[in-house]
Amino acid sequence: MIHYNGKEFICLLDFAMEFIRGKWKSILLCHLYEGPKRFLELQKSIEGLSQKVLNEKLKELEGEGLINKIIYAEIPPKVEYFLTDKGKELYEIIAPLKKWSIKYYPDIDEKGE
Amino acid sequence: MIHYNGKEFICLLDFAMEFIRGKWKSILLCHLYEGPKRFLELQKSIEGLSQKVLNEKLKELEGEGLINKIIYAEIPPKVEYFLTDKGKELYEIIAPLKKWSIKYYPDIDEKGE
Repeated sequence: MIHYNGKEFICLLDFAMEFIRGKWKSILLCHLYEGPKRFLELQKSIEGLSQKVLNEKLKELEGEGLINKIIYAEIPPKVEYFLTDKGKELYEIIAPLKKWSIKYYPDIDEKGE
Repeated sequence: MIHYNGKEFICLLDFAMEFIRGKWKSILLCHLYEGPKRFLELQKSIEGLSQKVLNEKLKELEGEGLINKIIYAEIPPKVEYFLTDKGKELYEIIAPLKKWSIKYYPDIDEKGE
């Protein structure tokens, strides 16, 4: 058992999986891997993700050190989110899951991507 | 958007992640990657996993083609679960998450493994 931040994890895999549980965090890492993005860009590019949930998930990812933000000194202020090395490495591990999906489900149709 | 089995997925990554959502499925893949195991072996080796949930998760993994079972014609009957190629390949993709955990959280302590 691993004890971390008041939570218990069965093993190192369980521990790492915690960072990408739920529907949105892996998808956000995927979108930010393409390059820094603004809040509205992320929201527009991810169907079904509300402003409230996006805000929560970005805060979680930032708190976990997977993403960071640049605040440009402009008027109106411009904020961009980008992956840290830790976030990039996490994404690079799970990215091959896309190929796995195609290999085992060749008929699934990814429209609009 | 991907439509599959009455569910909607944002992208191929989201689709694949669905197979390992929740706490137990990735852990079960990890334990079965070591070799075929019986129900009770799995239950004993994974702390906190109830018989009911283990039963559910094994059925889900079997339904998704990630594991299979061998029923030996013995008395009492012996049943062993093992990973299919599809399950093995899925696990091999996520296995490096363990190294990622150690790299970024070198102080976490994995007792009893």
